[in-house]
Amino acid sequence: MAGAHPEVLKTLCETNLLHTEGYGNDRFTAEAKRIILEACGLENGAVYFLQGGTQTNKIVIDRLLSRNDGILCCESAHINVHESGAIEAEGHKVLTLPAPDGKISAESIRKYITDFYRDDTYIHMVRPAMVYISQPTEFGTLYSLKELKEISEVCHENDIPLFIDGARLAYGLAADENDVTLQDIARLSDVFYIGGTKCGALFGEAVVSRRPELLPRFDSLMKLHGALLAKGRLVPLQFITLFSDNLYLRLGYHADRLAMKLKQGFKDKGYRMFIDSPTNQQFFILPNTKIDLLRTEVGMELWGPPGDTESVVRFVTDWTTTEEDINRLLSLI
Amino acid sequence: MAGAHPEVLKTLCETNLLHTEGYGNDRFTAEAKRIILEACGLENGAVYFLQGGTQTNKIVIDRLLSRNDGILCCESAHINVHESGAIEAEGHKVLTLPAPDGKISAESIRKYITDFYRDDTYIHMVRPAMVYISQPTEFGTLYSLKELKEISEVCHENDIPLFIDGARLAYGLAADENDVTLQDIARLSDVFYIGGTKCGALFGEAVVSRRPELLPRFDSLMKLHGALLAKGRLVPLQFITLFSDNLYLRLGYHADRLAMKLKQGFKDKGYRMFIDSPTNQQFFILPNTKIDLLRTEVGMELWGPPGDTESVVRFVTDWTTTEEDINRLLSLI
Amino acid sequence: MAGAHPEVLKTLCETNLLHTEGYGNDRFTAEAKRIILEACGLENGAVYFLQGGTQTNKIVIDRLLSRNDGILCCESAHINVHESGAIEAEGHKVLTLPAPDGKISAESIRKYITDFYRDDTYIHMVRPAMVYISQPTEFGTLYSLKELKEISEVCHENDIPLFIDGARLAYGLAADENDVTLQDIARLSDVFYIGGTKCGALFGEAVVSRRPELLPRFDSLMKLHGALLAKGRLVPLQFITLFSDNLYLRLGYHADRLAMKLKQGFKDKGYRMFIDSPTNQQFFILPNTKIDLLRTEVGMELWGPPGDTESVVRFVTDWTTTEEDINRLLSLI
Amino acid sequence: MAGAHPEVLKTLCETNLLHTEGYGNDRFTAEAKRIILEACGLENGAVYFLQGGTQTNKIVIDRLLSRNDGILCCESAHINVHESGAIEAEGHKVLTLPAPDGKISAESIRKYITDFYRDDTYIHMVRPAMVYISQPTEFGTLYSLKELKEISEVCHENDIPLFIDGARLAYGLAADENDVTLQDIARLSDVFYIGGTKCGALFGEAVVSRRPELLPRFDSLMKLHGALLAKGRLVPLQFITLFSDNLYLRLGYHADRLAMKLKQGFKDKGYRMFIDSPTNQQFFILPNTKIDLLRTEVGMELWGPPGDTESVVRFVTDWTTTEEDINRLLSLI
Repeated sequence: MAGAHPEVLKTLCETNLLHTEGYGNDRFTAEAKRIILEACGLENGAVYFLQGGTQTNKIVIDRLLSRNDGILCCESAHINVHESGAIEAEGHKVLTLPAPDGKISAESIRKYITDFYRDDTYIHMVRPAMVYISQPTEFGTLYSLKELKEISEVCHENDIPLFIDGARLAYGLAADENDVTLQDIARLSDVFYIGGTKCGALFGEAVVSRRPELLPRFDSLMKLHGALLAKGRLVPLQFITLFSDNLYLRLGYHADRLAMKLKQGFKDKGYRMFIDSPTNQQFFILPNTKIDLLRTEVGMELWGPPGDTESVVRFVTDWTTTEEDINRLLSLI
Repeated sequence: MAGAHPEVLKTLCETNLLHTEGYGNDRFTAEAKRIILEACGLENGAVYFLQGGTQTNKIVIDRLLSRNDGILCCESAHINVHESGAIEAEGHKVLTLPAPDGKISAESIRKYITDFYRDDTYIHMVRPAMVYISQPTEFGTLYSLKELKEISEVCHENDIPLFIDGARLAYGLAADENDVTLQDIARLSDVFYIGGTKCGALFGEAVVSRRPELLPRFDSLMKLHGALLAKGRLVPLQFITLFSDNLYLRLGYHADRLAMKLKQGFKDKGYRMFIDSPTNQQFFILPNTKIDLLRTEVGMELWGPPGDTESVVRFVTDWTTTEEDINRLLSLI
Repeated sequence: MAGAHPEVLKTLCETNLLHTEGYGNDRFTAEAKRIILEACGLENGAVYFLQGGTQTNKIVIDRLLSRNDGILCCESAHINVHESGAIEAEGHKVLTLPAPDGKISAESIRKYITDFYRDDTYIHMVRPAMVYISQPTEFGTLYSLKELKEISEVCHENDIPLFIDGARLAYGLAADENDVTLQDIARLSDVFYIGGTKCGALFGEAVVSRRPELLPRFDSLMKLHGALLAKGRLVPLQFITLFSDNLYLRLGYHADRLAMKLKQGFKDKGYRMFIDSPTNQQFFILPNTKIDLLRTEVGMELWGPPGDTESVVRFVTDWTTTEEDINRLLSLI
Repeated sequence: MAGAHPEVLKTLCETNLLHTEGYGNDRFTAEAKRIILEACGLENGAVYFLQGGTQTNKIVIDRLLSRNDGILCCESAHINVHESGAIEAEGHKVLTLPAPDGKISAESIRKYITDFYRDDTYIHMVRPAMVYISQPTEFGTLYSLKELKEISEVCHENDIPLFIDGARLAYGLAADENDVTLQDIARLSDVFYIGGTKCGALFGEAVVSRRPELLPRFDSLMKLHGALLAKGRLVPLQFITLFSDNLYLRLGYHADRLAMKLKQGFKDKGYRMFIDSPTNQQFFILPNTKIDLLRTEVGMELWGPPGDTESVVRFVTDWTTTEEDINRLLSLI
């Protein structure tokens, strides 16, 4: 991992000595909110700035759910697997649906809810009170606009909010096969976040909601969670830069293009994809001997428990990845 | 549901006007603890009295786990399905293993733990820090002594406590095919509870542990959870009666015998068991038309979502069930 | 402590063998709700049955407050001192006002709220989002109707619910100087509870609200807290009896009359009251030597840390206290 | 508020393009830990890096306390007043001692604990299981070495950890009247933190403990709280700079010197101190008319609710404050 995109760091340096109000009452925060709402096509809406993905998921979900509410997502969801129990730590059960490619369908959500309310034993069970999806998913896959519309619809039918985790949103928006715009996400979700940490920022995420009434006293809740930065302008300043000159999308295009090159290279050499991802995360099934060899040379990670003779590995590209990095990796396999 | 076994109620009536210390500092509580420890074959040990199963599971697990700890159990575990998120409400993730018959194996626990610690990404995940099983299980099935020993062993190997939910323990101990004694359970678990509510008491459960150091300041924790009865003798008095003249086991034998008669009757008429249970819960697959008919006459419940033409139903026998009840049910099918 | 008033126990015995639906779906629960709402003068309203005072406070407050909300009460409030942190365990700060006699005033509430919102630093602090009072208070004192109306008013002005803990309500309603009826309490509070455990029941409390919308999915929340009794009729049956033939008030009158006799006796002998209580709890300042003497003969307790030469003691009367008990105590001092 | 000290920002820029392991497994994190332990005079010890003060207090306290434990501090403690209920949100009661100057004494702690355990009613109350103090305090005052030793002693006597909040530690260490070194704090506390956010860093705090066994699986707990930065090196890099060339202390001296000048200036003009602070926070009682005037010109804040004719205001100096700033302020009063 590297730090921030040079443009982002430049902004932090240029503004460093300015004195502004703390805790988000400064003009940069206001400016960043305005820019983001405009990019999202929202006239009214709420924007809040947080420091990382788990923190964001935890606080948003904590705000949207009542005590005896649960959140529905796929088994591989980040909140279910890789957040150290952050959601349960707030008292909420994570309710899961199987989803081999990291995507859940409107149909599976509808069935879960129908089954849940089928008789009055549901008072002993945890209500599915919210839906969580990631775009792109934890497997790099993407919801199509049609799929997203259907999920949004089933949520509204049942009057439960849809929350979209956009930790890697830049790579989704920039993908060749993507047909979902930032405005679509803003319109079809109730709350979502635009990932900064994994998309060029030093750190930081931007929570956006077209329904500000869903996030009452959110500043105070952020404080309670230890997530209200004293120097509140730090994250907004980064988003101002990321949303200038199309930088956010350009970062995404760059990483996705190199990821596609990587994918084609592996396929050309006969390796099997674990999943066919159109974004910056690529998953391949490699012989363990090959993995041992590559590991000493390349940043990659095992995905899930290793198999006896072959295992799944994940490669991730970003704004620091170069054409040469990919060429070198492909020359090694 | 009826109230308490007449013997139990008689004890409550006979002692009603006596004045004793509140909050568990009375002689009946002391006496009940002594009787239970003796029945469990424990020289030293802790006994606490609570009011219901979910409350007991919630408080014991809350005591045994640290904040970022999870509890391993089968998918059908009561704590995973039917406690309205009581465990997650205390901040703990319920980690599940598939188990078609409601039983998990030592092998599956071992594999889960090994996979968990396979690399250092586990700091992002919830540690399996405790194991929960039910005896009998939620499907009425029983762990054999061999199975229980193996599970106990894998827990001790990994230094994580084993907690056994004995909400229906009477029916397990009394079952024909059972080879696990109360002493075995006391010895092989770290903490377990003897169910009263479903086994003859008006209400109440007895938590037992051979390792009192695992339950520090448990009275205070019960108070925090709103579970420290002012009239602390109420539950102990009931257990004194249940453990006199073998009443607890006799209740179990009675219900199990009638459950076996019910099972044989259904089998004789050609119905398929959903699961082959040796205890007082019986699960059969019946045509929906038959279910609609029976429902108006008999206490029973659908188990899981109904199927298109047939569904699973559950019958439960207890100390109030009579030979005539079974005969009548069998005459209806 | 004794068990239940004989009339209450009789009801439990007479209904013991009846089979009814579990978890509160039975006809006795429905009947008890009807009787209580009628006694409270409420046409529409919610009634729920719980097992003890701390449990009731914990669950009601958990339902009424959002995550970053606190509850305002007096320093001596039961929830602040004697519930082992049950409210904080649900994540809520208990915000306190000084109140030497256990009573807070509308004025002190208003000032707290005004000070709180005086500038925008309040986002760093815990919002007073609910008010808790006890009637009678932890010192046995009573709010007058005028005081109660003013508190109710300041709560409504600020759109925060008023919750009244009626653990010892019988002794308040029956007190000579009391001018607050059950209907007043039902009308002026948003939620309150009628204490059973300390007023003749084996155990149990009845939560009442004129605003059912404040307690959504309360059954499920009770389950989550381990407070949904399988045999849901147990507490309602007791309240049916307590509310028949005026039993609840008669119990209160009995205890209050003896408490007044006790108070007069102490005063006659020149002892100083710690507080002038019109209900069944009496607090006196006694020389430590006298306390040591009495303690071997009489049920009483030290109130707060002992002083060097004299200390505060508390005496409590109830339905089991007799004229002879009081005479004997008075003869000893 | 400004950003980071230029030296700190320079380090972030110089290392920006380097690739390192995420989540704290990088060499800069290791290096910063080494430097800090050495400065603290600890051979063995744990160091963790967090992002802000409330977050740090919340997570450390969450780790050190069991469910039914409370934390003892003074009424004005940051955790009691200005963290939006962050500690209670983790389930812990904040137990307070009065302390007009923001400091509690060993004697008051000892008395609280003795009173608490005086009889067996303590099981209904929240155990004081940890002590929290701030150095400097929220009023800018300082514990002397003697006072700190006594507090440390009473904690060890009672086997409860002492946690010191060093959000503004630089200003304490650098104060003229201070006789407590960083090594003293490391030795006399069980856990403490060195504040970065308020002392020259962009953001970030360093938790230090001479007893690593008190903080088991702390990385995972940080993750659960949404506080494990992906780019884990960001905070350590800043501390490496702050602890180079004595920068941390130099920042402190600078701010303290200007604060003393400010104090003398106010005193010379006859204004009363609200409290006599030897560090970078200064509190004065000013006429409201004067406050209204100053407010348009100078960064300052009201401290507590305004009075009728005069109020308390707080001034804070830091590394960005200049001699001219102070001169200008003094010329205005």
